[in-house]
Amino acid sequence: MGHVTSVSPFAPKALPEVPEIAGVRFATAEAGIRYKGRTDLLVAVLDPGTVAAGVLTQSKTRSAPVEWCAKGLKSGKARALVVNSGNANAFTGKRGHEAVEITAEAAAKAAGCTPSEVFIASTGVIGEPMDAGKFAHLLDKLTADAVSGAWQAAARAIMTTDTFPKLASRSAEIGGVEVTINGFCKGAGMIAPDMATMLCFLFTDAPIDQPALQALVAKEADRTFNCVTIDGDTSTSDTLIAFATGAAEKRGAPRIADASDPRLDGFKTALGELMQELAILVAKDGEGLTKFVTIDVEGAENDRAARTIGLAIANSPLVKTAIAGEDPNWGRIVMAVGKSGEAADRDKLSIWFGDFLVAENGERAPGYEESVVAKYMKGSDIVVRADVGVGPGRSRIWTCDLTHGYIDINADYRS
Amino acid sequence: MGHVTSVSPFAPKALPEVPEIAGVRFATAEAGIRYKGRTDLLVAVLDPGTVAAGVLTQSKTRSAPVEWCAKGLKSGKARALVVNSGNANAFTGKRGHEAVEITAEAAAKAAGCTPSEVFIASTGVIGEPMDAGKFAHLLDKLTADAVSGAWQAAARAIMTTDTFPKLASRSAEIGGVEVTINGFCKGAGMIAPDMATMLCFLFTDAPIDQPALQALVAKEADRTFNCVTIDGDTSTSDTLIAFATGAAEKRGAPRIADASDPRLDGFKTALGELMQELAILVAKDGEGLTKFVTIDVEGAENDRAARTIGLAIANSPLVKTAIAGEDPNWGRIVMAVGKSGEAADRDKLSIWFGDFLVAENGERAPGYEESVVAKYMKGSDIVVRADVGVGPGRSRIWTCDLTHGYIDINADYRS
Repeated sequence: MGHVTSVSPFAPKALPEVPEIAGVRFATAEAGIRYKGRTDLLVAVLDPGTVAAGVLTQSKTRSAPVEWCAKGLKSGKARALVVNSGNANAFTGKRGHEAVEITAEAAAKAAGCTPSEVFIASTGVIGEPMDAGKFAHLLDKLTADAVSGAWQAAARAIMTTDTFPKLASRSAEIGGVEVTINGFCKGAGMIAPDMATMLCFLFTDAPIDQPALQALVAKEADRTFNCVTIDGDTSTSDTLIAFATGAAEKRGAPRIADASDPRLDGFKTALGELMQELAILVAKDGEGLTKFVTIDVEGAENDRAARTIGLAIANSPLVKTAIAGEDPNWGRIVMAVGKSGEAADRDKLSIWFGDFLVAENGERAPGYEESVVAKYMKGSDIVVRADVGVGPGRSRIWTCDLTHGYIDINADYRS
Repeated sequence: MGHVTSVSPFAPKALPEVPEIAGVRFATAEAGIRYKGRTDLLVAVLDPGTVAAGVLTQSKTRSAPVEWCAKGLKSGKARALVVNSGNANAFTGKRGHEAVEITAEAAAKAAGCTPSEVFIASTGVIGEPMDAGKFAHLLDKLTADAVSGAWQAAARAIMTTDTFPKLASRSAEIGGVEVTINGFCKGAGMIAPDMATMLCFLFTDAPIDQPALQALVAKEADRTFNCVTIDGDTSTSDTLIAFATGAAEKRGAPRIADASDPRLDGFKTALGELMQELAILVAKDGEGLTKFVTIDVEGAENDRAARTIGLAIANSPLVKTAIAGEDPNWGRIVMAVGKSGEAADRDKLSIWFGDFLVAENGERAPGYEESVVAKYMKGSDIVVRADVGVGPGRSRIWTCDLTHGYIDINADYRS
């Protein structure tokens, strides 16, 4: 990139120190795939017995690594994860698949497993042929050097236009034994929900069978990552994978086979909180943002309809630029509700900015004072709430404003 | 608006002089609804016997004037059209409907017709209560003063953020007698196709019965105005109405009742060309644009799928900013095809910028030279072509790039 991007105003002050997870080790390298002077290659080495569950982009032009992961998720056994940033290995034809195979074979040899137990993700420019030869030779040493404490380095190595690494942790009890879940993700542009919407990797020592883990992860992805949008542009490379080493079994945690087992209740809550925290961090690193925006929709026909309406609001360039301009232009919320195609009763529609009711029963609220709401719009955390007046459906969407910064970054990404 | 907008680089050098149409007269006024020092009120007076056909926004939050026009189109008889700019009278509740009724009654009294023969359109800010008292008293004098040559003034009075008026004309023969079609439209932002996508008024002296005119207009709208997008935001107020005075009947043109009558062939072509010219003028006045962009999609499952893919490309902020940055970033075209949800064969996908093949068979074209294509991207007329490799479906979409100018205009529209 030929430009300097300042760090998001919503970047956490410090990157969290997260606990180690038995059975998970990392190494990173500067492979020079595209970026200079920063790490762009991550290897995660996973102990035998690790299972993998995940969700992948629904794009019709998904990348070679996504197709590889789809195959891997069928068996659900994992021993290694290789992630590179700088090149998405998407729309790279037969050579793209060859690059994936070369990577998988090199990692499998290094980790002592089969290629099908290696998961691969690539993020960066689309359509540029990827030369796996640039880094396949590094995998042997990286696998040997991998250490269990390198979480911050791992989160950093997968970044592209991200202005800060995104790392979080939770703990829960299963059968009275504490288990840990750590996760990190990347994403700042080309972000729109469609199963998974960026790269996200979760790791836990909880002993959960693959089908149960798959059910939990898919459900929480729908409520978290699939409710984040920066620009409505769905990536070719979206990959969310959760790896469970099962190491907590040795400390007495019971192995769980069924997602509805009540002993998983605490784990489910922790997993959902962790995924929500990471998803929100993606919205908070939206390219060029100055405002973090939460859209709450209620009164829709059902939750799916509420999500469609919420995304119509969140993806509207006119809503996003009004928020950037600190303009309480609720007429544009009316427009976005109307264009969503979902049922809405114009004459019962109510809209709030924060706690301020600005419109109700199909017109401007009687007590509306623009000067008061304009002051609210100067804040950096904006909540838009719309009640569309037809049913019980609800949704919450996280997004950001659309600014000159987004144009700067994206009119000049490859130069 | 608190900012100065420069005129679109695609504005025609001169506004066309269009011929008069028997039975159509115009008057305009500075009513001071929102703007100062410019006309913001248009009255068209139509001779007895005029029929009206049209298409209206599919928004779920459509404005009071749109609902009024929907009723009027059922009877299809027209004697007057009143258009104001500066206030959309949308999301204005019961008072919005009252304002429409006051306007219709005042215009009907002035024109000597029933209120149901008055068509009304309003464009501007959403949610601001509209005081019809500001201009209803002017309608009497305007109707009396209306003249048949005031086409340029009419096109000017309906503008909002438009940087130039949009006016065009065509002629055709029906039964050997020449008929004229004139039209003007407005629109620069909140433009996304959904039946009609802006205000557009067409006038002809052709003697065509209302159901036939309705069929022709709806069909051509789908291929023209419904294929224009500036920002993907569908307006609450989109209104396209064609008025046929039938005056050419006196000159010997036969009255036509059936849209499939072969004597209408020339008229159909002229109507389609006129609507396409006006639709393209809307794209060429897209807020903040520096490039006019044509998206051609072929090889889709069917024409509807091709249109969805074309709109996914045209509405992608990443595609639009890449074009603004003169970057031949065809990876983003791949992304947009993938996110459209329509069938596409990634491994047969081909992409062109202008005549330059940049990608084929699912990867970068062997002969691709970035420096050559980068030079093409510096032009102001950009054509993107994608063959998605699954069927015979085709579409053509007109749009523009996304620039700092769009942010300037829309972060500050109401201030």
